[in-house]
Amino acid sequence: MVFFVTPTKRRPEQKADLTRLGQTLAHIPNLFWILVEDAEGPSDMIRDLLDRLKMTQTSAHLAVSTPEKMRMNASDPNWKLPRGVEQRNAALEYLRTNHASWHRGAVYFGDDDNTYDWRLFDEIRKINRVGVWPVGIVGGLIVEAPIVASNGTVTGFTAKWKPERPFPIDMAAFAVNLSLIVENRDAGFSFDVPRGYQESHFLTSLKLSRNDLEPRADFCSKVYVWHTRTEKAQLSKKDLQRTLDPAQLSEPERNAIA
Amino acid sequence: MVFFVTPTKRRPEQKADLTRLGQTLAHIPNLFWILVEDAEGPSDMIRDLLDRLKMTQTSAHLAVSTPEKMRMNASDPNWKLPRGVEQRNAALEYLRTNHASWHRGAVYFGDDDNTYDWRLFDEIRKINRVGVWPVGIVGGLIVEAPIVASNGTVTGFTAKWKPERPFPIDMAAFAVNLSLIVENRDAGFSFDVPRGYQESHFLTSLKLSRNDLEPRADFCSKVYVWHTRTEKAQLSKKDLQRTLDPAQLSEPERNAIA
Ligand SMILES: O=c1ccn([C@@H]2O[C@H](COP(=O)(O)OP(=O)(O)O)[C@@H](O)[C@H]2O)c(=O)[nH]1
Ligand SMILES: O=c1ccn([C@@H]2O[C@H](COP(=O)(O)OP(=O)(O)O)[C@@H](O)[C@H]2O)c(=O)[nH]1
Ligand SMILES: [Mn+2]
Ligand SMILES: [Mn+2]
Repeated sequence: MVFFVTPTKRRPEQKADLTRLGQTLAHIPNLFWILVEDAEGPSDMIRDLLDRLKMTQTSAHLAVSTPEKMRMNASDPNWKLPRGVEQRNAALEYLRTNHASWHRGAVYFGDDDNTYDWRLFDEIRKINRVGVWPVGIVGGLIVEAPIVASNGTVTGFTAKWKPERPFPIDMAAFAVNLSLIVENRDAGFSFDVPRGYQESHFLTSLKLSRNDLEPRADFCSKVYVWHTRTEKAQLSKKDLQRTLDPAQLSEPERNAIA
Repeated sequence: MVFFVTPTKRRPEQKADLTRLGQTLAHIPNLFWILVEDAEGPSDMIRDLLDRLKMTQTSAHLAVSTPEKMRMNASDPNWKLPRGVEQRNAALEYLRTNHASWHRGAVYFGDDDNTYDWRLFDEIRKINRVGVWPVGIVGGLIVEAPIVASNGTVTGFTAKWKPERPFPIDMAAFAVNLSLIVENRDAGFSFDVPRGYQESHFLTSLKLSRNDLEPRADFCSKVYVWHTRTEKAQLSKKDLQRTLDPAQLSEPERNAIA
């Protein structure tokens, strides 16, 4: 089973992004989608989407708000604070409580606006403890990729940004075995780590080191995931305000975003 | 049959966008994808994608360059010149030559970075001559939608930008019957029209008027397509240059974009 964990934030493009992602995931066999909304409670929009995609039985729909102090303003550059920390931790707790007994389970963190080639899921299924692969257009590069020696071990990384990180890779670059999450009950994400260290913090908290990395996607030569980002809608301040209160929206406006 | 016409431009995010779009289209019944590359010739990347998606028999893969004079620089704002004119015209010619005899065919122009809810294709199939529907996050608005009177006719549009256009709607907002394209052999797109008038020019060249518009998507109350845009990759000048010559790229770099 592949557990695909998606933190997701309310914004005008959210429904479009989740529709596109949900349609990508809907026909993948043995996939379980854990959606964690950055919100006080689960939305009808996402419930209806899962229903429409016939994924109600193969998904969990959770919600937990990012604490006030750690929430960004619309005008903040999006790297200012870590994103999805509480949401991914909620998914880990959910997995420990509800799915601990799966014999073969892989956990992957898949953001709502990335692009996933269907072949990625075959690679995720192949991991033993922790698999890694390249990610396209991320970190200001055409690709960030693990460097693999001819004996098949990972000897380095192409990342240019903070290459001194224990694991200089993106959240989309790895998957881990569910058993590691169950065994390491305190493992997770944290607001208390330097910028860019979420992945390293998490993998380290699973007691993994670089030696454990299993290169996938044809020895890390193939790209099956891209860190695409959806442009923010160019709305007026007034319209942006109106998106927060469905009662103020016309029927097609409401349907476009909620 | 739904003929889905996609002009597509080479750029670092193109492979990601087409992968995501192709996976959205692959399982739609009775859909024929006409991809027209803005390039001298068809690329292996797109041929391989169609092959992988098992769409070789249900697609056409064409290529025609935008004329030198009409090509934009990477630094130009993307509204500076019309996009996809030659490519969409090539698709129309291809349809007239190869598919003129379909009894029920609908032609839709679907850009490579928009988001399509699967339900859109059912609406496209329902059209007689020309169908219209809302488009999410476009033109600086939450939604651009035709306004439908209680008797089911289109009486106006919510577009704020150049509302005086004959058809103030986006390329994603309509589909037309194939027979109109066959009957009006000169109909098409043009570099010679004011900004924002491509849709109006095309629909007028099919001898359509506002009275002909058939509102779909539950009387234009539902949104099944969003004018999403993929952020440009933040590459250095040197890397951007390198993307133009595959010989200069590492294997994962090449695989990320080509
Ligand atoms: O305050 C936030 C910001 C983001 N996200 C989610 O966290 C993931 C990563 O965020 P984003 O795509 O904005 O970051 P980037 O692509 O720049 O890493 C996405 O699935 C978002 O929907 C969230 O849950 N809360
Ligand atoms: O020089 C160009 C620019 C764009 N396109 C294609 O035309 C469509 C619309 O372009 P874009 O998405 O850049 O425009 P916008 O979303 O701003 O209308 C897309 O499928 C592009 O790949 C093209 O064929 N040649
Ligand atoms: Mn993202
Ligand atoms: Mn576009």
